[in-house]
Amino acid sequence: MNSKLKTKLIEIARTKYSTDDPSHDFNHILRVLSNIESIVKEEKADLDILIPAALFHDVVNHPKNDPKAKFSSDESAIVVKKVLENIKEYPRHKIAQVEYAVSVCSFNKGIVPNTLEAKILQDADGLEATGAISIMRTYASAGQMKINFYNQKDPFCKKRKPEALQYALDLFYQRLLKIKERCHTKKGKKIAERRTKFLLKFLKELEQELKGE
Amino acid sequence: MNSKLKTKLIEIARTKYSTDDPSHDFNHILRVLSNIESIVKEEKADLDILIPAALFHDVVNHPKNDPKAKFSSDESAIVVKKVLENIKEYPRHKIAQVEYAVSVCSFNKGIVPNTLEAKILQDADGLEATGAISIMRTYASAGQMKINFYNQKDPFCKKRKPEALQYALDLFYQRLLKIKERCHTKKGKKIAERRTKFLLKFLKELEQELKGE
Repeated sequence: MNSKLKTKLIEIARTKYSTDDPSHDFNHILRVLSNIESIVKEEKADLDILIPAALFHDVVNHPKNDPKAKFSSDESAIVVKKVLENIKEYPRHKIAQVEYAVSVCSFNKGIVPNTLEAKILQDADGLEATGAISIMRTYASAGQMKINFYNQKDPFCKKRKPEALQYALDLFYQRLLKIKERCHTKKGKKIAERRTKFLLKFLKELEQELKGE
Repeated sequence: MNSKLKTKLIEIARTKYSTDDPSHDFNHILRVLSNIESIVKEEKADLDILIPAALFHDVVNHPKNDPKAKFSSDESAIVVKKVLENIKEYPRHKIAQVEYAVSVCSFNKGIVPNTLEAKILQDADGLEATGAISIMRTYASAGQMKINFYNQKDPFCKKRKPEALQYALDLFYQRLLKIKERCHTKKGKKIAERRTKFLLKFLKELEQELKGE
């Protein structure tokens, strides 16, 4: 993709993200783009598809605890389609693939994508649910939703099933620690593995701190 | 302090903390108590003073970005005084020291306490602003206040002064990384030093992640 079109798309996308949810603001989008740039160093993928898909993949984003949450990806796909249709210089035959990548993006949907670009987008977005970044995002959501940091009786889910809408730390066990297994690309997996090690260090440190140490 | 009185005080305190602010809920109080237990293993301090001081030190807690925030400690001291005056079995001559410890508790006030108990409470509460716990608390507040996770142009305050009310990560540079220097007790300092090392690991990891790695 030429840099003029990329800049144009970035500027359109930037206006569409609110600053109300720091877990899904435009910095999240810029990080996903940055993850994509790392992954495509090792994969021959089409950036014409990947860049708009990354930029608009969260443009509609209902809160996690809202029943409409499951429609966010499909609604985002409709938005990106309309945006690209209005840009003359964007190749029309690639629009459907952008839509597809956006609509299957969320790991939560459980869809294994069948195009390389959709796989890369899913990996790049999945990486946002690992490492230091996922800790920031998890606890910002906990603050917004006013839920507990952890279950006081069993913080590390040793004897119970994780309940991430009740206890923020449970999301580690329900989702964050599993991201590495779901990555499709070699590079995505490699990054996820290092980030997962950091999550385990965080849990170890927290365990010590909860003992007053 | 006998365990019956301790349990009674815990139960009174528990009812006074709301679940609206996960950074200052009753689990925060329990962690401060736990930090105190670690510190008093190496310091001969009066738990009759320390336990109620810890339990009620945040009982009034105006939000960080509220102009009334600076009065929280003094208002908490008034509450604990009233509570203890109504408990017959609590030694009246110790009430003033509890009040004192609560009123000077916040590191932000910049007061160096002149009693051992007030020093220990300040250390135990200060430890909540270090380590994995401080990351959870910082980002939960960021979510509540809807502020940015970091400054996109200079996340690690390399070329600018930290502005913690604008960017959550700036709090590391404004406060969290400095806690270890402010501790009064040997044990408090030792714990803070280990926790600070973890904060530095978090920053190093985040720097790598922001590059898409």
